[in-house]
Amino acid sequence: MHEVKALLFDVFGTLADWRGSLARDVPALLAPHGIAVDGFAFADGWRAQYQPAMEEVRAGRIPFSKLDALHRRNLEIVLRDFGLTQRVDEPLRAQLTLLWHRLNGWPDVAAGLRRLRAKFLLAPCSNGNIALMANLARHNGWHWDAILGAEIARDYKPKPAVYLASAAAFDCAPGEAMMVAAHSSDLAAAAAAGLRTAFVARPDEYGPATGEPAPSVPVDVVAGSLLELADRLGCA
Amino acid sequence: MHEVKALLFDVFGTLADWRGSLARDVPALLAPHGIAVDGFAFADGWRAQYQPAMEEVRAGRIPFSKLDALHRRNLEIVLRDFGLTQRVDEPLRAQLTLLWHRLNGWPDVAAGLRRLRAKFLLAPCSNGNIALMANLARHNGWHWDAILGAEIARDYKPKPAVYLASAAAFDCAPGEAMMVAAHSSDLAAAAAAGLRTAFVARPDEYGPATGEPAPSVPVDVVAGSLLELADRLGCA
Repeated sequence: MHEVKALLFDVFGTLADWRGSLARDVPALLAPHGIAVDGFAFADGWRAQYQPAMEEVRAGRIPFSKLDALHRRNLEIVLRDFGLTQRVDEPLRAQLTLLWHRLNGWPDVAAGLRRLRAKFLLAPCSNGNIALMANLARHNGWHWDAILGAEIARDYKPKPAVYLASAAAFDCAPGEAMMVAAHSSDLAAAAAAGLRTAFVARPDEYGPATGEPAPSVPVDVVAGSLLELADRLGCA
Repeated sequence: MHEVKALLFDVFGTLADWRGSLARDVPALLAPHGIAVDGFAFADGWRAQYQPAMEEVRAGRIPFSKLDALHRRNLEIVLRDFGLTQRVDEPLRAQLTLLWHRLNGWPDVAAGLRRLRAKFLLAPCSNGNIALMANLARHNGWHWDAILGAEIARDYKPKPAVYLASAAAFDCAPGEAMMVAAHSSDLAAAAAAGLRTAFVARPDEYGPATGEPAPSVPVDVVAGSLLELADRLGCA
């Protein structure tokens, strides 16, 4: 591992508990407007539109749009499915979309990043846009060296350009950067682009015992948390 | 000022003492190779090639190239002018180019950024590339929310796209971002793009009493240091 200079992180699911955060925050935001929703169902419905929306960009059917814009567009579908189209006005839709900017990190993340930072350059390599990532970092006390990922590459993972542009922004050859994620598909794509890979298990991402407990593809490192990843990578 | 959400910083000259740093580091790097140079003359000669090289990109005569690549190309000219072309080999040229990644900040910068950070999103909006900016931040203990500027805009200041792309990356309208610089030309271009502007005096940038003591264009705020800027912007 001595040649790895930078760690690139998936964020939604790997660092941030998007599902638990939205399940708490969406009902809290809607309640004062007299609207009651099942937060977990709403979160799952919103997230279900995530890949189809990005696929429009990846396939070239729509130009690159920041994830905030896709989240906002996807929200229309979720509101329709929940029968709320007429009850949620434009300012409230904007507020809902910004809930993605203050997701809570998993409990090990802030301390894990602090340890990893002593040895590696650190950046998110997420499909989230720069403002979303910057606000998440403020909300959770994370210190990045740069915000990399989809917005600088102007395409979405798992397209190889996103991993390669992120490594190159840190002046790293692909093999000098390690992608850290809780999803085998992300790591398989990063490895195919030449990056090193670390799997961090988030078995409760979609609810208890729903996430991947172990990688289904070959990876360089497997860990149960960022603290364990710091151990594995020799960080004090 | 209550609508300003983000501060965008010029770096070379405004935050980092490129001339003093190179004047010290270039001779120190060359001396073990038996090469003696006037560090200030070398720094000035290198910097003199900065605008002409970027102009090649701005005018569309060469594709966007990271500033590291332009610094490396400009180094050829300086070595030739100093009669050192045959005496500085390729690895040493690479090491010289990386000296730009560890310039020292002016003494007020680290403390000033810490105060400003409590109220604003902070990013460099420099012509320096992402890796250069990330390494400078590590070297000086600066904490940015993102690295914006030329590399994300894929063009060089003072082209308006660089200021506008940087503000937009933070989800700011142009008027919600304030450009901070020691150079009136930078601030004039930012203001023309719709940004707010703050002038920070660095009167010794090119040697004692050589920099701009005051702005030559209208600006929103004038300060003698980042600490004074923090006072002016109401930061504790």
